[in-house]
Amino acid sequence: MPLDPDDSVVVLAHEQFPDRAKTAVGVLRYADYDVTAVLDRAHAGDAVADHVPDVPDAPIVERMADALEYDPDALLIGIAPIGGGFDESWRSDVRAAIEAGCDVVAGLHYFLEDDEEFAALAAENGVDLIDVRRPPEDLTVSKGRARDADADVILTVGTDCSTGKMTTTLELVAAARERGIDAGFVPTGQTGIMIAGWGVPVDRVIADFAAGAVERMILDAAEDHDVLFVEGQGTIIHPAYSGVTCSLLHGAMPDALVMTHSAGREAIHGYEEFAIPPVETYVDLYTDLADHVAPTEVAAGALDTRAFEDDDAAREAVEAYASSLDAPATDPVRFDADEILDALL
Amino acid sequence: MPLDPDDSVVVLAHEQFPDRAKTAVGVLRYADYDVTAVLDRAHAGDAVADHVPDVPDAPIVERMADALEYDPDALLIGIAPIGGGFDESWRSDVRAAIEAGCDVVAGLHYFLEDDEEFAALAAENGVDLIDVRRPPEDLTVSKGRARDADADVILTVGTDCSTGKMTTTLELVAAARERGIDAGFVPTGQTGIMIAGWGVPVDRVIADFAAGAVERMILDAAEDHDVLFVEGQGTIIHPAYSGVTCSLLHGAMPDALVMTHSAGREAIHGYEEFAIPPVETYVDLYTDLADHVAPTEVAAGALDTRAFEDDDAAREAVEAYASSLDAPATDPVRFDADEILDALL
Repeated sequence: MPLDPDDSVVVLAHEQFPDRAKTAVGVLRYADYDVTAVLDRAHAGDAVADHVPDVPDAPIVERMADALEYDPDALLIGIAPIGGGFDESWRSDVRAAIEAGCDVVAGLHYFLEDDEEFAALAAENGVDLIDVRRPPEDLTVSKGRARDADADVILTVGTDCSTGKMTTTLELVAAARERGIDAGFVPTGQTGIMIAGWGVPVDRVIADFAAGAVERMILDAAEDHDVLFVEGQGTIIHPAYSGVTCSLLHGAMPDALVMTHSAGREAIHGYEEFAIPPVETYVDLYTDLADHVAPTEVAAGALDTRAFEDDDAAREAVEAYASSLDAPATDPVRFDADEILDALL
Repeated sequence: MPLDPDDSVVVLAHEQFPDRAKTAVGVLRYADYDVTAVLDRAHAGDAVADHVPDVPDAPIVERMADALEYDPDALLIGIAPIGGGFDESWRSDVRAAIEAGCDVVAGLHYFLEDDEEFAALAAENGVDLIDVRRPPEDLTVSKGRARDADADVILTVGTDCSTGKMTTTLELVAAARERGIDAGFVPTGQTGIMIAGWGVPVDRVIADFAAGAVERMILDAAEDHDVLFVEGQGTIIHPAYSGVTCSLLHGAMPDALVMTHSAGREAIHGYEEFAIPPVETYVDLYTDLADHVAPTEVAAGALDTRAFEDDDAAREAVEAYASSLDAPATDPVRFDADEILDALL
């Protein structure tokens, strides 16, 4: 994927910035490349800093034409409607980007490459349309070799979907790099892929090839880094997605796991009749399942404490979580990732 | 898939019948429809009964043209080369079948529908090309509802691939029907689908939809039957395929499991550095993983005893296996499926 650290990127987030624009905010917070403008017709004239603290600032403009003065290399679709379709109100922005020589990056179920107008226009202007949700076509089955990787491998796992696996992984990468460790991020979902500029969306891969896709990423990334932090997906007891989680556990063969949980959540998100058991149960399930493929341990925990307004309550929740896990834990967003990193390295 | 119990089917198994023609032999043994001839140029002039006892007899002929006198409705490709490609030496047989008005059914990775000559010829002759390995396009995520099915659901699981999951499942269906039970077979792999005439190849489905594909089959089949026997796949500790096994366990939400094992096997087939742990370990792994989605138990075991020449040794192995499992067990092919059925019903 041609997004380099030197690139300037415009992020489309119409009418959803920042609260419903998870990808846009993730890219602003974690990507190496430069976000030069955000497109949001509902907030045109504001700045990113008016809405999201602690990320590099950028102007918010109404349309792509207004962003061209920043000389962007690419337009990135930073939101997704339910169902992953393409919103026709974005068409003029995508058209303007292609005509200005920008690549367009999207993580929709609707592939830009399959859109006749965009495909023709991209060919004419010599730009790439990059659908990160389309897996490569040359995937194959796992050979069971990820443990041969010449790098330590850490996988985030969780008690449910949306417990902060991607965020925890990225915070750990940043904290490790700050300590001078050559840390690599292995992205397995669309937002992670957009942030990193590479990766395979494991949930979109043919089931037989899911572990193989993870294995290949591990072996490739291990050539460039000393420690790999792998973005986990779902949970091992998810009624719909557990197969993806299982493929990640056996495909990545991690040396250690970081267990993520969202404080206060009591049932699987969207599947409310399925209760979330105590975190100790998850520790046993993940480690027992790993044992006969590639033994591992839960070395630390990451608790999403956004349910608590004040830090003291959050700190109490983190302590209780660490005690249940029998491992160090923290909230790497509210506090920092040092405790987890100390436990891992 | 238009294979009805009334259909007459010719099965292609050139140069591999019977020992390397698993699908052809499975179809002869278990399919409701009639196999009127087998194509095998290496054994032309023989009869099926010369090679395989205990299945309906049929002539073995050299080419499709020789089989037309039996008035077939379909040609079924009953073998697969390594890699799942189409062997060009079969082309004249497929052509002759289509020109004679036969549908053609295949489970190859190479899709007949994508072959220009076959597609044009099929359109011309008004016949169907049926690639059972191509999953339906309208699959979606599981809703976690298989337990609502108005049928008992039994899933075969195993200690490895190729431990007799499909065979055990089909033997159970046959034995249950002999007792007058309205039993349904839920096929999840290509051979099972060819035998049953319907089904979804779960290993070829997008990983996120694997449990959903199983759930849909369960809910559909439960409308027609009182007991469903679901064909399992892989093993929960397979380095490459465990995700598929996990999706089957959580998607099917079985009321009971039948644990299959191949006597004497000590390592995962093709992944010899991964030892097969004691069967008790598998019992815990499968039931613990099911517990928080849909609790289940291992109610019986099926041991493939073909490694033993004499029945006494096989019987001893079965007894030891039952004792390890703490559940009744047998070899449903060498002996019969009654003990398993008694434990289940």
